[in-house]
Amino acid sequence: MYELGVVYRNIQRADAQVAAKLAALGTSTVHEAMGRVGLMKTYMRPIYAGAQVSGTAVTVLLQPGDNWMLHVVAEQIRPGDIVVAALTTDNTDGFFGDLLATSFQARGARALVIDGGVRDVKTLTEMRFAVWSRAISSKGTVKATLGSVNIPVVCAGALVTPGDVIVAADDGVVCVPRAMASATLDAATKREANEGEKRAKLASGVLGLDMYKMREPLAAAGLKYID
Amino acid sequence: MYELGVVYRNIQRADAQVAAKLAALGTSTVHEAMGRVGLMKTYMRPIYAGAQVSGTAVTVLLQPGDNWMLHVVAEQIRPGDIVVAALTTDNTDGFFGDLLATSFQARGARALVIDGGVRDVKTLTEMRFAVWSRAISSKGTVKATLGSVNIPVVCAGALVTPGDVIVAADDGVVCVPRAMASATLDAATKREANEGEKRAKLASGVLGLDMYKMREPLAAAGLKYID
Amino acid sequence: MYELGVVYRNIQRADAQVAAKLAALGTSTVHEAMGRVGLMKTYMRPIYAGAQVSGTAVTVLLQPGDNWMLHVVAEQIRPGDIVVAALTTDNTDGFFGDLLATSFQARGARALVIDGGVRDVKTLTEMRFAVWSRAISSKGTVKATLGSVNIPVVCAGALVTPGDVIVAADDGVVCVPRAMASATLDAATKREANEGEKRAKLASGVLGLDMYKMREPLAAAGLKYID
Amino acid sequence: MYELGVVYRNIQRADAQVAAKLAALGTSTVHEAMGRVGLMKTYMRPIYAGAQVSGTAVTVLLQPGDNWMLHVVAEQIRPGDIVVAALTTDNTDGFFGDLLATSFQARGARALVIDGGVRDVKTLTEMRFAVWSRAISSKGTVKATLGSVNIPVVCAGALVTPGDVIVAADDGVVCVPRAMASATLDAATKREANEGEKRAKLASGVLGLDMYKMREPLAAAGLKYID
Amino acid sequence: MYELGVVYRNIQRADAQVAAKLAALGTSTVHEAMGRVGLMKTYMRPIYAGAQVSGTAVTVLLQPGDNWMLHVVAEQIRPGDIVVAALTTDNTDGFFGDLLATSFQARGARALVIDGGVRDVKTLTEMRFAVWSRAISSKGTVKATLGSVNIPVVCAGALVTPGDVIVAADDGVVCVPRAMASATLDAATKREANEGEKRAKLASGVLGLDMYKMREPLAAAGLKYID
Amino acid sequence: MYELGVVYRNIQRADAQVAAKLAALGTSTVHEAMGRVGLMKTYMRPIYAGAQVSGTAVTVLLQPGDNWMLHVVAEQIRPGDIVVAALTTDNTDGFFGDLLATSFQARGARALVIDGGVRDVKTLTEMRFAVWSRAISSKGTVKATLGSVNIPVVCAGALVTPGDVIVAADDGVVCVPRAMASATLDAATKREANEGEKRAKLASGVLGLDMYKMREPLAAAGLKYID
Repeated sequence: MYELGVVYRNIQRADAQVAAKLAALGTSTVHEAMGRVGLMKTYMRPIYAGAQVSGTAVTVLLQPGDNWMLHVVAEQIRPGDIVVAALTTDNTDGFFGDLLATSFQARGARALVIDGGVRDVKTLTEMRFAVWSRAISSKGTVKATLGSVNIPVVCAGALVTPGDVIVAADDGVVCVPRAMASATLDAATKREANEGEKRAKLASGVLGLDMYKMREPLAAAGLKYID
Repeated sequence: MYELGVVYRNIQRADAQVAAKLAALGTSTVHEAMGRVGLMKTYMRPIYAGAQVSGTAVTVLLQPGDNWMLHVVAEQIRPGDIVVAALTTDNTDGFFGDLLATSFQARGARALVIDGGVRDVKTLTEMRFAVWSRAISSKGTVKATLGSVNIPVVCAGALVTPGDVIVAADDGVVCVPRAMASATLDAATKREANEGEKRAKLASGVLGLDMYKMREPLAAAGLKYID
Repeated sequence: MYELGVVYRNIQRADAQVAAKLAALGTSTVHEAMGRVGLMKTYMRPIYAGAQVSGTAVTVLLQPGDNWMLHVVAEQIRPGDIVVAALTTDNTDGFFGDLLATSFQARGARALVIDGGVRDVKTLTEMRFAVWSRAISSKGTVKATLGSVNIPVVCAGALVTPGDVIVAADDGVVCVPRAMASATLDAATKREANEGEKRAKLASGVLGLDMYKMREPLAAAGLKYID
Repeated sequence: MYELGVVYRNIQRADAQVAAKLAALGTSTVHEAMGRVGLMKTYMRPIYAGAQVSGTAVTVLLQPGDNWMLHVVAEQIRPGDIVVAALTTDNTDGFFGDLLATSFQARGARALVIDGGVRDVKTLTEMRFAVWSRAISSKGTVKATLGSVNIPVVCAGALVTPGDVIVAADDGVVCVPRAMASATLDAATKREANEGEKRAKLASGVLGLDMYKMREPLAAAGLKYID
Repeated sequence: MYELGVVYRNIQRADAQVAAKLAALGTSTVHEAMGRVGLMKTYMRPIYAGAQVSGTAVTVLLQPGDNWMLHVVAEQIRPGDIVVAALTTDNTDGFFGDLLATSFQARGARALVIDGGVRDVKTLTEMRFAVWSRAISSKGTVKATLGSVNIPVVCAGALVTPGDVIVAADDGVVCVPRAMASATLDAATKREANEGEKRAKLASGVLGLDMYKMREPLAAAGLKYID
Repeated sequence: MYELGVVYRNIQRADAQVAAKLAALGTSTVHEAMGRVGLMKTYMRPIYAGAQVSGTAVTVLLQPGDNWMLHVVAEQIRPGDIVVAALTTDNTDGFFGDLLATSFQARGARALVIDGGVRDVKTLTEMRFAVWSRAISSKGTVKATLGSVNIPVVCAGALVTPGDVIVAADDGVVCVPRAMASATLDAATKREANEGEKRAKLASGVLGLDMYKMREPLAAAGLKYID
């Protein structure tokens, strides 16, 4: 499925403003706005709590125990990008640390999303370089085998095409296809707008059962109350 | 085993004062006081550190990818309750978020314990609504299939009967059967009372070997020291 | 493989000053300086973020659900030691809590590394007693079956011989054999010294591709750029 | 939750004939007939393919790494029983081997269902003593700590009360509460009776879409066909 | 990422003869011939040993605990197809059993590859209907929520586009993109042709070290022999 | 811990006759005879049921996704050896297939024990080349980075020193240190000799409770019978 040993230099990125605005809405709202799809596996966790970012994906495919291509992808980063690193197999080695983070940050990267391990997490946290990863590991890597840069990849169960928008937060990571970015921003913004009113009602003691008019369908489905 | 499609409205809750007092003793002391039983699996983790609560269980059984019954259980919550959500199968979707938390909090719930996933954890943390869950996930759910409310459930390996006391802290979650709540409070309080003196002795350098008089039984078991 | 029912009282510890100095370098640098070996499995996590310690290993082998030998090992602790607890089988019970931590701290232990579970993590965090463990669990243990103290053990996949140096941080736990401790300190210190200059270059926008002269070997390996 | 150190000698077993007849229907049909509940976790696997049994549950609660109570439960076995062994914590040691199997078989046990490990699986297979377990492990156990016999237990996520009916096959293990055994047998038999006709239709090329009249509800749910 | 609620009726299948011929080469050879990519996760296991098939993919996206779309996809099966079922989240319920297998077989399907659970495995084995799945589970499913048919899906970590070729065997499951099917068959056939000669040499005692001329590169990499 | 880039050519193997005789006793009996230690993790499974072997260990340390050193170790195999392959990190790629098996078999190897993945399992089974592995995977590997041969390794949690005896069967894999091989054979043979008589007694209905005289210690521990 994957083309190996290639670097695509010209990718079509989603609109930068749209990409930037999705962060504020958060992973869960964006995922709902897309119809409940596009989410990475729940094992992808932030290295520190509270980070919430969005940006355009540059992708990289790594071989197990080998971080050579992370140096290659660094050159392809533009301000506002998020690097999405997939692997050809399950492996939790520490592919990424503070030196690469310094380089990525200098290139304007907003975050790294990696289906493998990272290290130097204390320094990364101090640098406020956000990372979502499968694991934390000191295990060092070699530079011996080619992968690819900016090909479509499957990262933690989600298909990511270069230029798609990545939204990452405490709730996890979602990928918004470039062609859907603008519509998703609109839909997510609308969802968000509705939530304030709903929250106020629920806070006042109104039940979801009534607010969402669920009593009738529940009864129709056969729900029985027993005293 | 489970009766489906039913909501029991009248359950016998453990004494409210007893239920409230167990929080201060913590999961580990309560679990010891019960004879080292009643603990949920260790994969149940708090969404933020430091929360420590206890309360009476209202239970709900959910179907995979479906959070309909969480709206049904909301109506059954009374102040001081903790909602315990079990599933009919392993599933880590995000069944619960900030809107439901607002509703649960408005009803007086002290916490949620769920053998599935939750989302909006940043907002839940800001709201100080405590949750112990198996996973964090943005994955949205549908409202299509009935489960039940206030039937006995197995949650993360522990049997929870409606009205039992739940004690949850950084160390995990334990269920105290209603009939044992008062005796457990007494036993746990006594354990706690003993600990201050022990701690002082150990801090002064006295060894557990001597304090607990273990040298003789260790020798009897055959332990050999080699210089 | 393991000798059971024995306590070795006299072990040869690595040089105390060398052992103490390795902490500042961190797990990842030390692991690299050793040639990328000696690391424990990534499931070993600190109970609170930011702890970074090193010290000489005293080892203990535990039986499942039984913490008897932790009381035995306490007596063998000298200031500057780190207790490394291995198990004869996979088990995540809560072998260690605040009372044992008080005793360990009184004896001068700097940390516990345990391939099992611990409890009272809130108190341990307040005490600033650092622990790296496989799990957090309230599950209590018995005192019925002998293990051993100060024999070589396999802990979380790493062989630890009594007297070796343990380095533990947010990135994980590494074991440095006693005979390699001094050379590893030198090598790690050199690595660290180089990093400042590298970091400055990368921060200024120089690419790792150029700094590490990777373009030629990448081309030789067949990497192709596509516009 | 669990009462420790007790053996209940008199339990009410489900009707022996009903218990015996459920085997032929298999786990999946019985589970459906019960409303899709009562199933143990999917990690419970048979030690050899093709075994299909049912019988009345005698239960035993084991401590980690300790098989003492398996000798105690042996005395409580009556012909037609299936022993259900739960643990107070996760542990995969080899609690059961060919000697205990010889004893269980001599007492008339039809199978063992254990939320832990077993060993001597080659001999057990030759003996045709059916076992469903969480793991296969040579790891030996001690005889030091009490559990209980014939108390309600949670085994692999399912509540089992002594006297319930256990049905186990290649598809897994289900527990049928004693009070529901007869009705479940009737319902499962009816399900089975219907299946022959359905199978014939489907084999002839009729689609489930038509046989179950799904086209209309699918369209109502919004399904669109695109050429 | 996923479009929901749609069925694509017209897909471009890989050449039927090419698709059929890949089975004989097996997963491992085909995967190597593709450059070591396209493999599903190793948790995908056959329900019985020895099955080895290939065919053109028709895809289906399922919701957790819901097998409605398996009935929809049945109608889209043509002789020589393999159904590839992906899920919107991790879920191991028993989505597929002997009735659906009868229908799939009647339509000409060669196998099912499902990133979820299956049941009735004894009957499926007797029918010789090959299945690769993540789990075996009796857990029944509902028919309530739409997924899609014949959209590109990520199944067990591999991207599968309708019409691609699936090759499945004891070693696992690989997906060959339609455009690469013919070239992959040629490359795999060549690999296979070379293996006989290699096998004979190795069987006669020639070492891979010599046959592959590895001694020089090993020495260049620094390998040292110590007597 | 590990020395990299070295091959030790001269190792002291355990006595060949002793090594060969342990197979007949099986993993579980040998493990018990050693005092219940030396066992590998239970995730190590045979690729086909019924294989039961023992032999002297030659060890190899592999890097993730790299099987270069398996060609190096082949040259060090002598008739009666079992190759034990450890990894520097968790990785389940397919390091070993039918060509390497042909070579190993030609050199006289009795089996492979690998803490990683293998492929061509159908052919390996036909060849009757026994393998215990962590996973089955088609994933191909590279030949780029050095490990070592015949250094002490940790394989699946067990320390294996070159020349130790490996015993592997359906129950798992155990490592017997060279110095203990002869005594272990004696102890295991004695255990085995006792088992026939015990089995006969248990088969006749005598209970372990009586045969092992457990009633008194159980009562002393507080066990209560309730009618």
